[in-house]
Amino acid sequence: MATCEPPPGPSLAALPSAPRATPVALWHVAAMLRVGILGASGYMGGEALRVLLDHPGAEIAWLTSRSGDAVDEVHPNLFGLGLRMIRPEEATPCDVAFLALPTAASIDAAERLLGQGAKVIDLGAAFRLKDRATWERVYQQAHPAWPLAEEAVYGISELHGPAIAKARLVANPGCFASAAILALAPLVREGLVDLGHLVVDGLSGTTGVGAELHRAAHHPEIGDNLVPYNVVGHRHTFEMEQELGLLAGREVRVHFTPTYVPIVRGILAVCHGFTARRVGRGELLELYRDFYEGQPFVLVYDRPAEAGSSWKYEPYPWVSAVAGTNYCYLGLDVDEQRGRVVAFGALDSIGKGGAHAGIENMNLMSGLERTAGLTRRGRHP
Amino acid sequence: MATCEPPPGPSLAALPSAPRATPVALWHVAAMLRVGILGASGYMGGEALRVLLDHPGAEIAWLTSRSGDAVDEVHPNLFGLGLRMIRPEEATPCDVAFLALPTAASIDAAERLLGQGAKVIDLGAAFRLKDRATWERVYQQAHPAWPLAEEAVYGISELHGPAIAKARLVANPGCFASAAILALAPLVREGLVDLGHLVVDGLSGTTGVGAELHRAAHHPEIGDNLVPYNVVGHRHTFEMEQELGLLAGREVRVHFTPTYVPIVRGILAVCHGFTARRVGRGELLELYRDFYEGQPFVLVYDRPAEAGSSWKYEPYPWVSAVAGTNYCYLGLDVDEQRGRVVAFGALDSIGKGGAHAGIENMNLMSGLERTAGLTRRGRHP
Amino acid sequence: MATCEPPPGPSLAALPSAPRATPVALWHVAAMLRVGILGASGYMGGEALRVLLDHPGAEIAWLTSRSGDAVDEVHPNLFGLGLRMIRPEEATPCDVAFLALPTAASIDAAERLLGQGAKVIDLGAAFRLKDRATWERVYQQAHPAWPLAEEAVYGISELHGPAIAKARLVANPGCFASAAILALAPLVREGLVDLGHLVVDGLSGTTGVGAELHRAAHHPEIGDNLVPYNVVGHRHTFEMEQELGLLAGREVRVHFTPTYVPIVRGILAVCHGFTARRVGRGELLELYRDFYEGQPFVLVYDRPAEAGSSWKYEPYPWVSAVAGTNYCYLGLDVDEQRGRVVAFGALDSIGKGGAHAGIENMNLMSGLERTAGLTRRGRHP
Amino acid sequence: MATCEPPPGPSLAALPSAPRATPVALWHVAAMLRVGILGASGYMGGEALRVLLDHPGAEIAWLTSRSGDAVDEVHPNLFGLGLRMIRPEEATPCDVAFLALPTAASIDAAERLLGQGAKVIDLGAAFRLKDRATWERVYQQAHPAWPLAEEAVYGISELHGPAIAKARLVANPGCFASAAILALAPLVREGLVDLGHLVVDGLSGTTGVGAELHRAAHHPEIGDNLVPYNVVGHRHTFEMEQELGLLAGREVRVHFTPTYVPIVRGILAVCHGFTARRVGRGELLELYRDFYEGQPFVLVYDRPAEAGSSWKYEPYPWVSAVAGTNYCYLGLDVDEQRGRVVAFGALDSIGKGGAHAGIENMNLMSGLERTAGLTRRGRHP
Repeated sequence: MATCEPPPGPSLAALPSAPRATPVALWHVAAMLRVGILGASGYMGGEALRVLLDHPGAEIAWLTSRSGDAVDEVHPNLFGLGLRMIRPEEATPCDVAFLALPTAASIDAAERLLGQGAKVIDLGAAFRLKDRATWERVYQQAHPAWPLAEEAVYGISELHGPAIAKARLVANPGCFASAAILALAPLVREGLVDLGHLVVDGLSGTTGVGAELHRAAHHPEIGDNLVPYNVVGHRHTFEMEQELGLLAGREVRVHFTPTYVPIVRGILAVCHGFTARRVGRGELLELYRDFYEGQPFVLVYDRPAEAGSSWKYEPYPWVSAVAGTNYCYLGLDVDEQRGRVVAFGALDSIGKGGAHAGIENMNLMSGLERTAGLTRRGRHP
Repeated sequence: MATCEPPPGPSLAALPSAPRATPVALWHVAAMLRVGILGASGYMGGEALRVLLDHPGAEIAWLTSRSGDAVDEVHPNLFGLGLRMIRPEEATPCDVAFLALPTAASIDAAERLLGQGAKVIDLGAAFRLKDRATWERVYQQAHPAWPLAEEAVYGISELHGPAIAKARLVANPGCFASAAILALAPLVREGLVDLGHLVVDGLSGTTGVGAELHRAAHHPEIGDNLVPYNVVGHRHTFEMEQELGLLAGREVRVHFTPTYVPIVRGILAVCHGFTARRVGRGELLELYRDFYEGQPFVLVYDRPAEAGSSWKYEPYPWVSAVAGTNYCYLGLDVDEQRGRVVAFGALDSIGKGGAHAGIENMNLMSGLERTAGLTRRGRHP
Repeated sequence: MATCEPPPGPSLAALPSAPRATPVALWHVAAMLRVGILGASGYMGGEALRVLLDHPGAEIAWLTSRSGDAVDEVHPNLFGLGLRMIRPEEATPCDVAFLALPTAASIDAAERLLGQGAKVIDLGAAFRLKDRATWERVYQQAHPAWPLAEEAVYGISELHGPAIAKARLVANPGCFASAAILALAPLVREGLVDLGHLVVDGLSGTTGVGAELHRAAHHPEIGDNLVPYNVVGHRHTFEMEQELGLLAGREVRVHFTPTYVPIVRGILAVCHGFTARRVGRGELLELYRDFYEGQPFVLVYDRPAEAGSSWKYEPYPWVSAVAGTNYCYLGLDVDEQRGRVVAFGALDSIGKGGAHAGIENMNLMSGLERTAGLTRRGRHP
Repeated sequence: MATCEPPPGPSLAALPSAPRATPVALWHVAAMLRVGILGASGYMGGEALRVLLDHPGAEIAWLTSRSGDAVDEVHPNLFGLGLRMIRPEEATPCDVAFLALPTAASIDAAERLLGQGAKVIDLGAAFRLKDRATWERVYQQAHPAWPLAEEAVYGISELHGPAIAKARLVANPGCFASAAILALAPLVREGLVDLGHLVVDGLSGTTGVGAELHRAAHHPEIGDNLVPYNVVGHRHTFEMEQELGLLAGREVRVHFTPTYVPIVRGILAVCHGFTARRVGRGELLELYRDFYEGQPFVLVYDRPAEAGSSWKYEPYPWVSAVAGTNYCYLGLDVDEQRGRVVAFGALDSIGKGGAHAGIENMNLMSGLERTAGLTRRGRHP
């Protein structure tokens, strides 16, 4: 084999922080984690399955669905693997379980699985809020296992990494909550913006509708259209207020409105904050880079915004680049004249805003390399 | 021919305000207006042409483009009509001229055409702002004919109808300015929201990019993507602040950020205002209906927002319904807990936000029926 | 008013054949046709309604739906008109009725309405085939009123215009049948291609799925996807074989396969014929222009195909240009080396392939100007 | 860690043929291949880079582009990796080189790199055809290094795997050639269809246009449109005829027409063959399964086509499922009445139809596991 001297510039050797396929030495001594997915027929459970099938440290123990379908009847992308789904009651003990279930079923399943010694990652909303009255009002039901909600760690690894690593139960965040919290966290922690008037417009691909048929996602209706929904009081609002309030050390008001747009995967949170003092874009980009220093999956898109730069694209995050991945792109700009910051958070609602983040949490909870199975970059185009 | 008794309900006879094809009696005595379009090879000029070809009271005098192309080389939808474009210097006098030109060329052309006695509708930005210093800063050039800017009427018919009817020169508004001003006008006039912190997120179809090729509109890049652009300081901001300031009687601050989304036609302005006092959705819908009473092209989408209504769609405006038309749909909702109104304005950037609104202005300026040529509803789906 | 001399070139005065808004003199003496639509809540009936609302010679008598919804609960584009739908049994006599119903209901309704003296245009498939055995096999039911099927005229105005003008009952063609028949008719009549091996690939926007929710049209599934369906034995095949067989004077075999593509409106039939003798593109374009001479709604897209022409677009029909209209664009090319013609037919499945063509037929049947209400060109972009 | 008994059905243990992440034992003894990409700024080279960054047995030696841009200026999905591109003349020796270059530059580069001892995979068209006269006519230039074209192995691993494994130079196939050849190969080898009249309609996502701006890919033009291009004489036709001719042992005629559709990634070849004798769908599916037995990346989509099956989707391949991957889905149906087979080939033009297939070839040429780096399934949705 020819020797091949690396040229000075582009070698990856100079890039210690770039996430890559996990070094093999970590794996060949470890047993594979045995992982179950409760509710594998929807989009969220299916995405967890897709990534886990290729994960170097995990193997599928079982998959459940109420219908007991074959996997390739509901997930055309997994055709030919011969995977079957079992009914939830047939599930056997395993190391880690993902829950992609309705709220009440999640709570039942979490109790049972934790009792069997499994670690549990709930991809739903059963354990996300820390204030019981708020949870019960927002989800319009009594919570039958509140101590679990108190125990659960809110699964944003960038904010709660050490606690996640020690947790039995992780409450994986809502997709828009992930995007907006990551986009606003540095501003809020530093107290740079008016905490009573944060405005978040959320643009969502239709994956967010879920696999159930729905008029708002019928292609003739949405294919060349924009559909606002839950325009006030969306449930993710309360997660944003909780987590940003923790960072701020006081109450925060988030004014959140989502709109479906005709892309399939990916969401964009456009977040507005009114500045308390004059700040510039450069200063804020530096703040963001510092805040997310060493985080493998949050990238601060700090491209020059000046006209005339050689940059061929708009200097803001690119939703399509994070679709299908665990990456979140952040970006921002400042209207110095009017005193406003706009911060963008782009991620995939079933990627970094869902199943992929759940797998990152599984890695942390299980002592695996945090990036295992998650390093593949998104597409271009 | 069979007689045909109207059933009690659905007859149009009960709908005096519904715009329809203009009664013929108005037209058969009038001479046809002779209309020229300067800059007919772009999307805006082409859309004006498409509608004028079917207008009952106007006929095309000439079309210009710098390249002198045949119309069907640049507009595949107008194939086979045999229309040619002339060079701008070949244009002859006419009754009404539409300008779809770069700013400096618009000013030149407006002076010349007004001097020939034509009425002029500028579809560009040359005459939209009333403050010279602001205009010159925003458009980064000296204005060589400021008295015309002072004379020009800002072409939102719902706000300036009588002045438009008497005008020689109309400055047709920017698309996002139209959408946001119409969506916010009732709130601002009534002083119901904090005028220093209006936030507008604008979602734009790619028609807004224009006919020139541009990386942000290359289908592989935008086809499954969302692209924020001009996220602070967008030029339409200053029109919003000017017109809403006039309604409020004092200075207004609009915090505006647009994003391209992969639809072709139509824009949606998502407008947030913080309420000064507690208001409910019903009260505001009534305010909006009153404000736009009798306006044929602004429709207040006052569908019930309660869960369980028989309504099959989200109770907010439908962008696809106004694409290709002169209609603007408005809608709104209120977060009473947090004190925020969200108001939506949906229109087509080259429809009610451009060429169609220009034709409405032409109708008003020329004594024609205001709705002539513009009544056709949009598509579903 | 300024005088306005027409420049030599672009005046419409030189374009006698260009369809325009119908001269008013035709209308102000005529009574308005009273028109009913049976099944107005679907996409097809809704599109007929949208165009008829703006038709200069027709007015809506009634609209029916089984659910009795208000029109703006099912058609967001017709919001605010106050139109109600009645139940089918409440329909009163009228001049012309459009049927947008399931097959069996169409047959019932046609019998009743014809008995009341109305003219009937069936937008469905009840009366399209002339061979009873074929119809009953294809539609898997006995036909309870075959004499009506024999009486019905197949509603392609370019082939059966005089018969349509005299008809009581018109069977409006299937959308792909319209596109493929118009694209292949000149070739087949002249015997230029192998009639046993015509291949038609049909690309369909999702409007063709209809308003009922369907997994294949769920945006997450189709939004970035292509979905073949009914790939052999599609019902429109039999219409193509019938009508092309009539033109050829002998049996024709059409091998037709449709695929859903993620556009909303518009279909494209890509039709392949193996040539019996050497022919060139220029010769065939001339044949097509002759064949459709004087037809207002079929345009032969005869752009130069040579590299280096000034033409900015591909020299083939443009689906988006005919969406929402009654126009059909045809185009073609020839592989002289291998002996194949490819002919394209582009139209809108509920435009020239559906409701608009039905209105054209109504105009013909009622002695109105053929183009009334239908002249508006499609959009660009 | 809890023990976790596998339930009977869905365990992967029963799935020996399912491609998975390569067992680590293969890698930790091997040196990493050093790989260069000539022309990394386009979509094809960028996709090769994206996959290679995560490949367990390869590392990037260098990347070139004529402009010398930073990678994240042209590939937003690879933001933050700090990768730079060098000018082609700075490239140093390496183990394997991918060429994503214009034809003439490819030939130059191949000669130089082979001379340095590298293995070369040309992602372009320089070495695909075996008949020099055909190549020179199709590509309209003289070939300056024809012996290399004779030496090059046509890179469809399913047909030429052993030769690829021994090759120095692989000519990676055209995307539509890959799809159509894989879809038609079993039919052609068995002589089941008329070899003079194979018809292929190709539907292409806009990635196929490439990164250069082009009017046909301007989103306002194509976003809701269908654009046929190169409708006769497309260059991939000749690859199809060459490879299918080899399988048949005699001349084959392919009648190929492509159309751009508004999806970003993925292509679908709809292939029609007239049957020589009566065959049924079941029989052909069995033939296809046999033909592709043991092939990890070609999946025969043999879902039941009968009405009433529990299958929730159309029983044909799913383009979105293979986008971004090295998988090709095949499917088919038969019109027994008219004597036609329709076979579908779905793949990604820069996946199995491009860069991913190139990496599969690299694996084969270098003695790596064939599936290394390529096992990740596509998305759903």
